[in-house]
Amino acid sequence: MGERVYYLDHAAATPCDPRVIEAMRPYFSDVFYNPSASYAGGRAAREALESARSIVAGIIGAKPYDIVFTAGATESINLAFRGVLSGGGKAVISAVEHVAVRRVVENYPHSVAKVDTRGLIDQDDLREQIDDETVLVSVVLADNEFGTVQPLSAVARLLKDIREDRRTRGVVTPLYFYTDASQGQSLLDLGVSRLGVDMMTLNSGKCYGPKQVGALWLKPSVRVQPLVEGGGQERGLRGGTENVAGAVGFAEALRLVQAERHDEAKRLGAIKKQLVDTLSALVPDIVFDGHPKRSLPGHIHMHVDGLDAERVVFHLDTEGVYIATGAACSANKATRLPSLEAVGLTESQADGSLRITLGHLNAAEDVPYTAERIAHAIQTERAL
Amino acid sequence: MGERVYYLDHAAATPCDPRVIEAMRPYFSDVFYNPSASYAGGRAAREALESARSIVAGIIGAKPYDIVFTAGATESINLAFRGVLSGGGKAVISAVEHVAVRRVVENYPHSVAKVDTRGLIDQDDLREQIDDETVLVSVVLADNEFGTVQPLSAVARLLKDIREDRRTRGVVTPLYFYTDASQGQSLLDLGVSRLGVDMMTLNSGKCYGPKQVGALWLKPSVRVQPLVEGGGQERGLRGGTENVAGAVGFAEALRLVQAERHDEAKRLGAIKKQLVDTLSALVPDIVFDGHPKRSLPGHIHMHVDGLDAERVVFHLDTEGVYIATGAACSANKATRLPSLEAVGLTESQADGSLRITLGHLNAAEDVPYTAERIAHAIQTERAL
Repeated sequence: MGERVYYLDHAAATPCDPRVIEAMRPYFSDVFYNPSASYAGGRAAREALESARSIVAGIIGAKPYDIVFTAGATESINLAFRGVLSGGGKAVISAVEHVAVRRVVENYPHSVAKVDTRGLIDQDDLREQIDDETVLVSVVLADNEFGTVQPLSAVARLLKDIREDRRTRGVVTPLYFYTDASQGQSLLDLGVSRLGVDMMTLNSGKCYGPKQVGALWLKPSVRVQPLVEGGGQERGLRGGTENVAGAVGFAEALRLVQAERHDEAKRLGAIKKQLVDTLSALVPDIVFDGHPKRSLPGHIHMHVDGLDAERVVFHLDTEGVYIATGAACSANKATRLPSLEAVGLTESQADGSLRITLGHLNAAEDVPYTAERIAHAIQTERAL
Repeated sequence: MGERVYYLDHAAATPCDPRVIEAMRPYFSDVFYNPSASYAGGRAAREALESARSIVAGIIGAKPYDIVFTAGATESINLAFRGVLSGGGKAVISAVEHVAVRRVVENYPHSVAKVDTRGLIDQDDLREQIDDETVLVSVVLADNEFGTVQPLSAVARLLKDIREDRRTRGVVTPLYFYTDASQGQSLLDLGVSRLGVDMMTLNSGKCYGPKQVGALWLKPSVRVQPLVEGGGQERGLRGGTENVAGAVGFAEALRLVQAERHDEAKRLGAIKKQLVDTLSALVPDIVFDGHPKRSLPGHIHMHVDGLDAERVVFHLDTEGVYIATGAACSANKATRLPSLEAVGLTESQADGSLRITLGHLNAAEDVPYTAERIAHAIQTERAL
């Protein structure tokens, strides 16, 4: 360490925004009180917590009461899936869901809806997978591999039709629409009504807030069982003394990325274009995956058939350039493959896949150097 | 706020030690990387996490591998109880367990072992409650109400006898001994071998570390199911990108309280004696509950029959003196009563109960003033 680092892996983790650290600071020391305590200090902690909840709710166009603060997106996913599916019924998930979704859903009857070669949900296949026992449909807002932005409102209309059809046939099984917004939250609109979802996961650690803080928004009609029971906090859905500093930091982080998202999307989009153009010129047979238009502005997925991408990542590491191959939030490389298979990549294309995800730590003036180093690493590995 | 506050509720929440905040700082910004990432930054985050795990393990005399970092003690409790009991079998808990234990165990067959009037576990009753289906026995290290320190090693010997008896009779049901060390961890020895336990919960938010961070230690023989599944973190028992800053802060907090516990116990014991003596002199009919000897040095539980303790707490709040009546980690006052009932307090004695818990924010020179204000509040309320 010590030398300059070029961080191109914002989908794996984001640094806390200095403004977020500043916002959290008082709640570690001065206002450290238990929000359930009745004295003034406890009430001040409670107010900070509820104000954080209101900020998050305001951003997604929901009521504060319907936001449950959790200890991270993975917990939110578990709460949503176990909470709904432990009551019975089946789930349908898209083929590009996060590993946490895929892992948890394995405990319950479920099926997987196809995506096309660009990672976009196949709505016909989705419709076919849904039967009268389906209670939960999960389509990520934008996936962590390709950054393909899913047409959630179209899926919502599809589900609305199915619900209406069920009603006319007297089928009373509920059908909830869940989305994990962890990757999309920093750059996309999060209005839950516009998206048409019933449940949404948010992730502080991926939007320049503290790690292991998150939220699950639940439409009032959604009934879930708690995962963690205790003193009745978070209306009984998440026991344990509340993480006030974390909630305040998360709310500030989400507020900042959402306030700045149009400018940041433009900025990152320009860097992405420059990177893609430079890499294309330097490595002519490089293939860019994902959707040409419906893509997160900072997301680049690419492959070179036959390349040992893992060695490229190691090589770049020695030069202080951090990019990803296997999904970084998992120790297990195999957890990434399902998404790559789903878009039709062969094994040798998947092994030759690299992911670059841009964010706050990237600047346009770094592109020539980083693109050159990445291209050089690819060519070097290829020559071996 | 703004005026001087006298905080006498350290059992509800503790402020982050400034040294802990300092230790966490780099992991919010400089070393924010995902510990699962393969590049140098990720490895540095991983090293910090594993170093935190080693520190916690060293303190309790365990192997790092057997420590699972969780998002708080309540989650640890849920992981321990659900993790063991979802496989079948019954639990026996002491009558002074934390509300989270009482809440979670309600999902499973269980019974409650009596305590005596001082809050000490009744070992004969405990033995009687255990039958061949019992897989889990839970006795808190020191309870949050009275601060009574339980004789865990004696209970461990009892359980050892039962295990041996089972073996001779060919009964293969395992019998695990669980303890929640949340309240005792700052001032007591935590050696798991000396205590004779198989599972232990630790709580960062109660030892001057960040909130919603904790650990569950599991003896290698204990098999539990995960609560939160995801990317395989924490050897599959707690999915989600790890809270490196939180783990580092927690380890530093636990290290500090354990390094300083003998001096701090002496210091708090002296303040407690002074407070008890002064209050006894000012309110002659005040009764101090709990155990005269086996008691946490900073814990005072007292009652005045017929007093409206809640109004006393409100009154003191207006003077900046923060003490507790109902268990502060719960919004529901009723959750406190089982412990008070268990030691034989009548309803009007329970309603007249106050809890003072001392810690870092208390100094001997504040005793005359705070004791006088507390006594004055009691007398004022009584006069109404």
